[in-house]
Amino acid sequence: MTDDPPNPALLPAGLSDVLPPEAEREAMLVEILAETFARHGYERVKPPLLEFEDSLLAGSGAAVAEQTFRLMDPVSHRMMGLRADTTPQVARIAATRLARIPRPLRLSYAGQVLRVQGTQLAPARQLPQAGIELIGAESAAADAEVAAVAAEALGAVGILGASLDITLPRLAPALLDAAGVEGEDRRRLARALDRKDAAAVAEHAGRAGGAALLLPALLAAAGPAEGALAVLAEQDLPPAARAIADHAAAVVAAVRAAAPGLRITLDPVEFRGFRYHTGVAFTIYGPGRVGELARGGRYLSGEEPATGMTLYPDAVLRAVPAPATRLRIFLGEGTDAARAAALRAEGHATLARLVPTDTAQSLRCTHELDGAGRLVPVVESERWPMSR
Amino acid sequence: MTDDPPNPALLPAGLSDVLPPEAEREAMLVEILAETFARHGYERVKPPLLEFEDSLLAGSGAAVAEQTFRLMDPVSHRMMGLRADTTPQVARIAATRLARIPRPLRLSYAGQVLRVQGTQLAPARQLPQAGIELIGAESAAADAEVAAVAAEALGAVGILGASLDITLPRLAPALLDAAGVEGEDRRRLARALDRKDAAAVAEHAGRAGGAALLLPALLAAAGPAEGALAVLAEQDLPPAARAIADHAAAVVAAVRAAAPGLRITLDPVEFRGFRYHTGVAFTIYGPGRVGELARGGRYLSGEEPATGMTLYPDAVLRAVPAPATRLRIFLGEGTDAARAAALRAEGHATLARLVPTDTAQSLRCTHELDGAGRLVPVVESERWPMSR
Repeated sequence: MTDDPPNPALLPAGLSDVLPPEAEREAMLVEILAETFARHGYERVKPPLLEFEDSLLAGSGAAVAEQTFRLMDPVSHRMMGLRADTTPQVARIAATRLARIPRPLRLSYAGQVLRVQGTQLAPARQLPQAGIELIGAESAAADAEVAAVAAEALGAVGILGASLDITLPRLAPALLDAAGVEGEDRRRLARALDRKDAAAVAEHAGRAGGAALLLPALLAAAGPAEGALAVLAEQDLPPAARAIADHAAAVVAAVRAAAPGLRITLDPVEFRGFRYHTGVAFTIYGPGRVGELARGGRYLSGEEPATGMTLYPDAVLRAVPAPATRLRIFLGEGTDAARAAALRAEGHATLARLVPTDTAQSLRCTHELDGAGRLVPVVESERWPMSR
Repeated sequence: MTDDPPNPALLPAGLSDVLPPEAEREAMLVEILAETFARHGYERVKPPLLEFEDSLLAGSGAAVAEQTFRLMDPVSHRMMGLRADTTPQVARIAATRLARIPRPLRLSYAGQVLRVQGTQLAPARQLPQAGIELIGAESAAADAEVAAVAAEALGAVGILGASLDITLPRLAPALLDAAGVEGEDRRRLARALDRKDAAAVAEHAGRAGGAALLLPALLAAAGPAEGALAVLAEQDLPPAARAIADHAAAVVAAVRAAAPGLRITLDPVEFRGFRYHTGVAFTIYGPGRVGELARGGRYLSGEEPATGMTLYPDAVLRAVPAPATRLRIFLGEGTDAARAAALRAEGHATLARLVPTDTAQSLRCTHELDGAGRLVPVVESERWPMSR
């Protein structure tokens, strides 16, 4: 919608108004994501925005403790937090109110999260999230299901050409454990892997020896999943690492079966940004340079094995081509009410004249009805400027 | 969904988890309300949950100042509030970012509000709201439009037999002004009106004299709108009160035209609970004893005349008959993927077997596919208990 430039003093940094038509598009998109989740048996829960901080920051919630707004509950005099992530709340619900429902439990959610501070790259302090959690299943089929359902949901809102990036954040640690690399040596290798500095990885791995010697080849293996899996298959991995690689191969095969058109990449020794993951980790990127649309992977939900995906509707909204907006149809004096209701039933918007000065132009209508009740476009040049 | 009894220590008082299937039903219902709003030209905005308290508590926001959680913004070191009502935020957006859009401006919203304390009758501290604001139009047609659109939205989610209660919170003050009733006399009359204590109203009005003498008849006139309007028409009202009564008659006529089946009542001297209303005020009740489903009326949006309605999706959810839930269809080994996709496209949920122990019963499925791909109900007695 046409608007004045935002006044920076008006809203706190990182908090913003979503205006027409983006606010409606975001809401519709979230409901399409939720509908896809529901059709795969994921049942929706809606935890409160605020809860006691000890339950909010338990488990995977510890990863966002520093990003959680806290406030005192005047009723109980205990500290509460405004959720910075929804997964810990779903884990609480699964472990308490839904403890007796047989596993696996498929749950979904959609709502807002708030963060104390934004970053330069991601300044927003309020973010929409829509996600699924599959709790109590350890199989590769479970990991594949959440990734494929997330990809299908993105397809349902019009994202074509997404790519699923799989990482194995426990693989490099398993190799370093097997090689007995600890202390400063381990930190140096981790930093080199984190920076993808092949020369430094080769140097530190050479010094560490043993299973660490596999790291340079695995670093170089990052790319299309089948190629990376072939490199993993060739290596003489220690047992813990072999189990991780075999699980990854099974996940890739199951995702391929469920989502044949999806681009899948695998970066075996990447671990950045996955702080509480216990198995495969996923990132879904949109086509081109639109950035991350979803993240997820395997974790512990309380004591239970779990896997899930969180989609970012704000990022998805930016990546989706703008749909045809609804017609805005001006209803002059004496419009047939049944005709107007029929137009609304087709999904159009009808705008009634409330005062004599209302015109199709002043109400930013795209169409009006002529004397015979036919839809006539309002001449573009006479229309008030619409949204970008 | 079957669950353990809620543990009161788990969540702060007045904050709760919405579980399956209610969470999905609430979300679907909100989107139907929003769709009805959109089809009448109301464009959605999404203000942030948190903003600076000076903008949040301005105008009509002052009415919820005591109910607003406050917290310090670590970025600006200014106080922020968690919204307790959405209308003040929409007023801010209209007055700033949308200042140059021609009036009237039709805006809608849907989201959560939070309150510092619940009451005995309404213990919830997090409430969903979905509403519309019509800003910059003073006509009775504008008031009638928001009431009729709200009633239509409730009809769209299945509420039949709602009733629209109209009150005129400025009418009694206008009569007291005309009669020159002030100070303790005025407070006594207001209290008597508030309690609907006819004897006390008659006694105090008799003492005050003048236009106050009309109060007993107006108190008794509360009831079906046409009867109450007839009583108002008969009285010799002072000019300010006459203008209010004429506006009310025009609103009732316009709502009748737009929503012929709606039950409309009018209570001319009721003013309770409408703290910032400057004209007609509305409450929509569901059929039977389900309570308030929506409130609204005329107010000032910044400096602009405005009228609006807020619907309460949690109350609406309790009033709507439970719809048929989706089928949950178990997909055993070797189910045809195209058949499963076709079932999902019809809106059903399909649940994949992820581990060999998964059964139609353990996944709480209502149906499974037989060898020929036909839907077969799972025998009720073998199913895991479903939700209420």
